[in-house]
Amino acid sequence: MLLDDERLDYLLAEELRIIQSPSVFSFSLDAVLLARFAYLPLKRGKIVDLCTGNGAIPLFLSARTESQIIGVELQERLVHMAQRSVAYNGLEPQISILQGDVKTIPETLGFEKYDVVTCNPPYFPADNMSDKNISEHMAIARHELYLTLDEAVRSASQLLKQGGKAAFVHRAGRLIDLITAMRVNRLEPKRVRLVYPKAGKEANTLLIEGIKDGKPDLKILPPLIVYGDDGEYTEEVREMLYGDK
Amino acid sequence: MLLDDERLDYLLAEELRIIQSPSVFSFSLDAVLLARFAYLPLKRGKIVDLCTGNGAIPLFLSARTESQIIGVELQERLVHMAQRSVAYNGLEPQISILQGDVKTIPETLGFEKYDVVTCNPPYFPADNMSDKNISEHMAIARHELYLTLDEAVRSASQLLKQGGKAAFVHRAGRLIDLITAMRVNRLEPKRVRLVYPKAGKEANTLLIEGIKDGKPDLKILPPLIVYGDDGEYTEEVREMLYGDK
Repeated sequence: MLLDDERLDYLLAEELRIIQSPSVFSFSLDAVLLARFAYLPLKRGKIVDLCTGNGAIPLFLSARTESQIIGVELQERLVHMAQRSVAYNGLEPQISILQGDVKTIPETLGFEKYDVVTCNPPYFPADNMSDKNISEHMAIARHELYLTLDEAVRSASQLLKQGGKAAFVHRAGRLIDLITAMRVNRLEPKRVRLVYPKAGKEANTLLIEGIKDGKPDLKILPPLIVYGDDGEYTEEVREMLYGDK
Repeated sequence: MLLDDERLDYLLAEELRIIQSPSVFSFSLDAVLLARFAYLPLKRGKIVDLCTGNGAIPLFLSARTESQIIGVELQERLVHMAQRSVAYNGLEPQISILQGDVKTIPETLGFEKYDVVTCNPPYFPADNMSDKNISEHMAIARHELYLTLDEAVRSASQLLKQGGKAAFVHRAGRLIDLITAMRVNRLEPKRVRLVYPKAGKEANTLLIEGIKDGKPDLKILPPLIVYGDDGEYTEEVREMLYGDK
């Protein structure tokens, strides 16, 4: 079942397993943060995770909701990894992984049919490929080669019903671009949470949720600090990763 | 020298005195935060403080720079208070307080002549006057009766040279409005700091600085927490208010 350098890793808090590969794709802490940040309907409701990679976010979400979850990923190799992880965990009744281009996926999945969209998009501009040694798979997942931020936000909005919620994670420096793209696409930002690597450091990551055609009323949630002064994860992050144990 | 219910209060960290009145105008912690947050030229440079109230921000700034500072205030009663405070501290060579309407003040002060503009504008919409019992002076200072956020941002930008910096303090929920108004008026947001009343609470206040015609590159500074779990000011805020003692 495992190919090449793939490993079967643990999602400890969720008591699930996930297939990862150091050369192809491994999920990051940002996926964990987004999966915890997003509002979810408990039972009924349809959720789409765009740029799903190896399916980490659908797996995380499945521990928090009984709703149907569709993960959309451009790269066939990653789709295959994600599908095998879903199968390994016996989650095929709840999670489907679809190969598709996020830019045009509403034409396949349908417009204004979904309650929640999550998206951890490529973070880095296409013209700034400083990490030239990474695999093509990693380059596509990390850089805006096939999908820009604006395109990701537009698709998220097109998928959502009125009143539906879209949640994104991105680099903190893209706050203005993200807010601008959301407003242009009828997603009114309602909740922002900034993630700081350590107390006293600048934020490096941003979580934001918007409501389609919502009224302006932004809340800025308490800061999330990842590492304590001792260099270990803070209690809040440990709980997200490892559960209440 | 003191009128009605005016008091001569201390600005402890700056070793200055300021005239305040519980019924007319008293500065808030937000003025202190803005005065500490704003970038200042050390010696040469011209600074304008819009919506200066009783002149708290020019007084605070005078302890950090030798540059010339002009405070602009609409209400004559407050202008008079500010001018007397400036005189009391012997700061007339450095600080001038001008009576004027912020909307049109660039016509008087000149376009694109200033290095730094600070502004602690009215926070609340004109149509949301829940605090009906406050004096007219307070209502004008707190509500957008004579000046909207957009108008304040436009005047700040008109006063600034290319490369000049504008710093604002506002309610956290106005983040998007403020960013939008700044971009429309050629002020590129470069530094944001969010102020949280306590750890674990939502942000209530926002500090933001933009550069006129600057390149997009936003930094989100470490969170500023005002009160500790013991209900006392945190060390950082204490230092701002009372100095290093």
